[in-house]
Amino acid sequence: MKQISVEQAAAFLERCEDAHILIHRSPDGDCIGSGYSLQAVLRLLGKRSKVLCADPIPERFGFLLPEEPEEDFPPKCVIAVDVSDEKLFGSLEPDYAGKVDLCVDHHVSNLLYAGQVLLEPHAAAACEVLYKVYRAMGIQFTKQIAMCLYTGMATDTGCFKFSCTRPETHIFTAEIMREFPDIRYDLINRSMFTVKSRAALHAEMVMLSQMEYHCNDRVTLIWATHDICQENGVDVKDMEGISSLGLQPEGVEVGLTVREPEPGVYKISMRSAKDVNVSEICKKLGGGGHVKAAGCMMTDCTRDEVRERLLAAVEPAL
Amino acid sequence: MKQISVEQAAAFLERCEDAHILIHRSPDGDCIGSGYSLQAVLRLLGKRSKVLCADPIPERFGFLLPEEPEEDFPPKCVIAVDVSDEKLFGSLEPDYAGKVDLCVDHHVSNLLYAGQVLLEPHAAAACEVLYKVYRAMGIQFTKQIAMCLYTGMATDTGCFKFSCTRPETHIFTAEIMREFPDIRYDLINRSMFTVKSRAALHAEMVMLSQMEYHCNDRVTLIWATHDICQENGVDVKDMEGISSLGLQPEGVEVGLTVREPEPGVYKISMRSAKDVNVSEICKKLGGGGHVKAAGCMMTDCTRDEVRERLLAAVEPAL
Repeated sequence: MKQISVEQAAAFLERCEDAHILIHRSPDGDCIGSGYSLQAVLRLLGKRSKVLCADPIPERFGFLLPEEPEEDFPPKCVIAVDVSDEKLFGSLEPDYAGKVDLCVDHHVSNLLYAGQVLLEPHAAAACEVLYKVYRAMGIQFTKQIAMCLYTGMATDTGCFKFSCTRPETHIFTAEIMREFPDIRYDLINRSMFTVKSRAALHAEMVMLSQMEYHCNDRVTLIWATHDICQENGVDVKDMEGISSLGLQPEGVEVGLTVREPEPGVYKISMRSAKDVNVSEICKKLGGGGHVKAAGCMMTDCTRDEVRERLLAAVEPAL
Repeated sequence: MKQISVEQAAAFLERCEDAHILIHRSPDGDCIGSGYSLQAVLRLLGKRSKVLCADPIPERFGFLLPEEPEEDFPPKCVIAVDVSDEKLFGSLEPDYAGKVDLCVDHHVSNLLYAGQVLLEPHAAAACEVLYKVYRAMGIQFTKQIAMCLYTGMATDTGCFKFSCTRPETHIFTAEIMREFPDIRYDLINRSMFTVKSRAALHAEMVMLSQMEYHCNDRVTLIWATHDICQENGVDVKDMEGISSLGLQPEGVEVGLTVREPEPGVYKISMRSAKDVNVSEICKKLGGGGHVKAAGCMMTDCTRDEVRERLLAAVEPAL
């Protein structure tokens, strides 16, 4: 493993051929924006490239995908973007673990599994790092590249709301907006942060009305259970926005959300309102992530045990 | 009335003495940030200045207020910031109407009632316009001025989410963040956009669960009635954030919220998700505001009449 600079990553991309670009499972705006902007950049240079993800790309990100179909080819080069750990390749792990040539990331928890790593832990988004790489390559952005990078930066910062937002995030965003004044950034934001189906909105209300308060009201716990989702006709994957809602009540420091994609499988999101480092807590529970937004999984246990383990891990950090 | 440039406004402020600074009734982040940053700037120049508002400043904006008490003095000069219409002085209108020397604003609907007007209708916030004026004056920002300007720009753009956000909004924000890296912008955002009292959160859920859908589900109507607020022990003023929630369901184009501060008095907020100009609609109903966020009032009518009048005004615009 060798950590490299923005310029070295730019040189790598200019040299590479036939790239498979890996993004993490349960894909979000940042890894999708990273992956598809990189694919577009490599295509601009006349190279074959293909984005691979263990899970389907959610519909609302459809506008970031290329119009041209993706062709199949064996990779001469493997690049991972926004993936801190090979485990996050999901079902693609067996095929690609140990084979990643370049990783571009912003997670402080990156396991440095790739041959070369461009890691900027202070960047708000992997898209912010890639923005610099593309500029170093002298790439002329297309509208699609601009939308990918904007979406990545906006989604990973909660629309410039979270502490990870830095001056560069705003500067790069301004530069994209100046270059592409006709993109409807407001509609991208609406689709990323506001719009919900009526069913999801109703399910959210049910979950919020059953929200638990713990640790002197400094911790909230929301259950996005399999049965509430089924009763309301929504997929637990459509309930993504709910993670941040537990931080709404005054005085709450940690918001826990337990999603149950299938009975007995618990995907936990942990959000920090102020100064609790939830990345550390999740690491102890076998997960990881960012200081203010992290996650972990639990299986083979009851809901009561999930609650107990979570509170036992969170309480000492308050 | 004379429309003036940023430089002329800067020269005006350098010359002025004993300023009364007026902000609009039901004060929000932008007029509060505008008013108190201007007070701070004038004080830096050794001038007496005082912010006046018809309504109390909500508690969550307390961090923007100066530590030194405000002294009483008769004004030699009256300045209005973020106030498009003298009516919005509220109870201060009789004392100040016709007496405003300078108005700095960004509302396209500004009635140009002041002696001199610096109007930038494309600015996202009055704070954005004032940022340029202070820079033209060569003012060295203090932390308080920085927090005022950031809060004004962030709140009027829904944290950089709405279509009024322009490249300059991001650039000025980046410059403030670079100059004051220690300000907890994330905590300002949390307090502005996320935090609610448990009572307000509960009242919100009750209101949302009774949300009405009209015009083929393209219009939502939320009632923040006097009785729901009373039952939940919240002030209707604490339910500010609810206006944006009606835009959540897929396909909604206009979100209407009717607040009832006292029985029979209806304050209506109108929000547009995409392309409907709600400023035009509200103007027809005797109100005004921005293209995407506007408001009006109704009295002496029943709730059914309020609904009827609103839908009759909105429907043709869809």
